[in-house]
Amino acid sequence: MKYGARNQIHATVTSVKTGDVMSLVKFDVDTPHSMASVLTSESLDELGLKPGDKVALVVKAIHVLPVKE
Amino acid sequence: MKYGARNQIHATVTSVKTGDVMSLVKFDVDTPHSMASVLTSESLDELGLKPGDKVALVVKAIHVLPVKE
Amino acid sequence: MKYGARNQIHATVTSVKTGDVMSLVKFDVDTPHSMASVLTSESLDELGLKPGDKVALVVKAIHVLPVKE
Amino acid sequence: MKYGARNQIHATVTSVKTGDVMSLVKFDVDTPHSMASVLTSESLDELGLKPGDKVALVVKAIHVLPVKE
Amino acid sequence: MKYGARNQIHATVTSVKTGDVMSLVKFDVDTPHSMASVLTSESLDELGLKPGDKVALVVKAIHVLPVKE
Amino acid sequence: MKYGARNQIHATVTSVKTGDVMSLVKFDVDTPHSMASVLTSESLDELGLKPGDKVALVVKAIHVLPVKE
Repeated sequence: MKYGARNQIHATVTSVKTGDVMSLVKFDVDTPHSMASVLTSESLDELGLKPGDKVALVVKAIHVLPVKE
Repeated sequence: MKYGARNQIHATVTSVKTGDVMSLVKFDVDTPHSMASVLTSESLDELGLKPGDKVALVVKAIHVLPVKE
Repeated sequence: MKYGARNQIHATVTSVKTGDVMSLVKFDVDTPHSMASVLTSESLDELGLKPGDKVALVVKAIHVLPVKE
Repeated sequence: MKYGARNQIHATVTSVKTGDVMSLVKFDVDTPHSMASVLTSESLDELGLKPGDKVALVVKAIHVLPVKE
Repeated sequence: MKYGARNQIHATVTSVKTGDVMSLVKFDVDTPHSMASVLTSESLDELGLKPGDKVALVVKAIHVLPVKE
Repeated sequence: MKYGARNQIHATVTSVKTGDVMSLVKFDVDTPHSMASVLTSESLDELGLKPGDKVALVVKAIHVLPVKE
């Protein structure tokens, strides 16, 4: 099974909140992992990112797809 | 500074690949952290997620927003 | 009327579930159509996709924009 | 294998265009299938969707995740 | 023509940069307009937003769909 | 503070609607600003956009990230 996505993080469910149409699930991630971001080369240039820089990676919860294998 | 997003992961840049319009940046995440996913209650029901379950969290790189503080 | 999006699928509403803030609508698609995906060249390389390969195309419902013409 | 997404469409690769950072893949979908959209209840109210209505479903290619099983 | 999206902003093209697979287009927006955001109720609670508060609305360019009428 | 996103719009909260899991916030944008869109070069070619063209920019509310500074 292979996904066309750079980020595949192994996680454990910690809580589930079920709503009328949408639900919110939370997870713990205990193991070191890598992440990838695609952004415009213009934005990259403004950020001036280079190896070793510390950043925050912000991801809206709606963009996180849980897969149960 | 507060973001309207559930996922804010501290990371270190490991590589940068600059393209003509879009660029790809990679990161290491060394510290345990939590994640959150919003999905339809129908999808949640089909997955049958409950605390303790192991999942993969798949996120396209385009949905990851780097922020330099 | 032209959209800056590769995927424009003709569909018929089959059900509507109205929630407090978000709602879920379902559709039938009866006619053959094409789809397009943009992914990183790295992900493409890992998937090794070539013409004739069978795949599943996964799309979160939140990314589907209904337009009534 | 279960995904936390409402839309899972079976498709066949028809073409691949590899770029420097991002790539574009096209697919044929020959079998009838269903689709789902999540939108705000306000947008739903403005569209006035009900069973039997014809719509176009617009999806940017970047939101389509290919999975090879 | 009605879209299932809360944000529909009238804009004028100012520049176009064509890449191998992806392109970047820029626009001017001269008229006052409204915007809408959907976020988790948890994130809203953390932000503590109330009428009159000043915020920045951050949107990745990939999530902006141009439509030519 | 720098974001890896092309669109950063200054706005004022006008209303808040809190739901069970997701909430909807509305804003006024009173000052002229620029916007950017990334789309496939194919879609750009079909739209035929050039400086001076008038378009509508459609953005689902879920893709708008409020940040309080």
